[in-house]
Amino acid sequence: MALQDFNILLYEEFEILDAFGPVEVIGELKEHYRIRFVSQNGGPVTCKQQAAIDTLPFGEMDSSGVLLIPGGYGTRPLVEDVEFMTHLRSLAEAAPYVLTVCSGSAVLARTHLLDGRKATSNKLSFAWVMTQGEQVDWQKKARWVKDGKYYTSSGVSAGIDMALGFVSDRFGEEKAMQITKYMEYLWNRNQDNDPFAI
Amino acid sequence: MALQDFNILLYEEFEILDAFGPVEVIGELKEHYRIRFVSQNGGPVTCKQQAAIDTLPFGEMDSSGVLLIPGGYGTRPLVEDVEFMTHLRSLAEAAPYVLTVCSGSAVLARTHLLDGRKATSNKLSFAWVMTQGEQVDWQKKARWVKDGKYYTSSGVSAGIDMALGFVSDRFGEEKAMQITKYMEYLWNRNQDNDPFAI
Repeated sequence: MALQDFNILLYEEFEILDAFGPVEVIGELKEHYRIRFVSQNGGPVTCKQQAAIDTLPFGEMDSSGVLLIPGGYGTRPLVEDVEFMTHLRSLAEAAPYVLTVCSGSAVLARTHLLDGRKATSNKLSFAWVMTQGEQVDWQKKARWVKDGKYYTSSGVSAGIDMALGFVSDRFGEEKAMQITKYMEYLWNRNQDNDPFAI
Repeated sequence: MALQDFNILLYEEFEILDAFGPVEVIGELKEHYRIRFVSQNGGPVTCKQQAAIDTLPFGEMDSSGVLLIPGGYGTRPLVEDVEFMTHLRSLAEAAPYVLTVCSGSAVLARTHLLDGRKATSNKLSFAWVMTQGEQVDWQKKARWVKDGKYYTSSGVSAGIDMALGFVSDRFGEEKAMQITKYMEYLWNRNQDNDPFAI
């Protein structure tokens, strides 16, 4: 079977663990996915924690791949960028699965693709996130939520739990557990158990 | 107080979460640390998961900063690189604290600076790690270990727990707990509780 792309969407001031926690998990699926780091214009993108990551521009990515949208302070200007949001909507429509972490959920919500669907986000900025998608059925107590092809997670480290949930749904729980052993990670596997709920 | 550098040592084929889990934690100490990504020769360094990160060369780093050494498959050639190991030993000697994650502990052990000290590493390659420091008092059951200025952790995600332990030791448990809330992270705060022990 040909490898499918797993596209990690980066932008200035993204939150480092939102992106690279799930990347650690998905990196163990080398037989299924090729990880690509993408951004609107390509080139180096700097996260809040000052790491500069090389990216491909949207124009060079395979939009039939899975799409992951991390959160971070950089989401605030992003949701006001009409050109970016228009492009993101078409990328999210084309993707077989879209995963968001933390305030990455707000960015996806702004495309209206989550309207009428259940979704969650990080708890410290939940009020702002909700204003980005008033037709979304926001879940205040959830580690992560799956609704159709959309996976949305709570803040930062919850993205790791969601990525393991995605692996379990797609490739079986045994595969997910193998990855937790490799990562020596204590998976919070009950998606309804959210100790940070507000 | 002037900011101190917190130097993240990168090399080809490092494990992404080993480095960026702790970076997420340390990134919340902006009033204390400036994070720098460094490598032997500088320029882009590519991790196992194919992210290329821009780095400063050893020659441009402030060696009085804290030093973090992640693990990964890339440690295997690294410990045989005499020039690198000589340089690393002097960097580790100069650093006020040295933190290692996963097989990053093997790299530090190879400098002999851990001789006679307690240390740990990831469980899936523990046998190999032990051969890199035969005078080290290796701890097979530990999430992380502190001995003097050296913090060593178990595999991959254990680096996040160790980084929070470092924050707690240096800046108080309340600060560590604030960071876990920001990250929505369930900290495995008992360093002796190691469910992945062999």
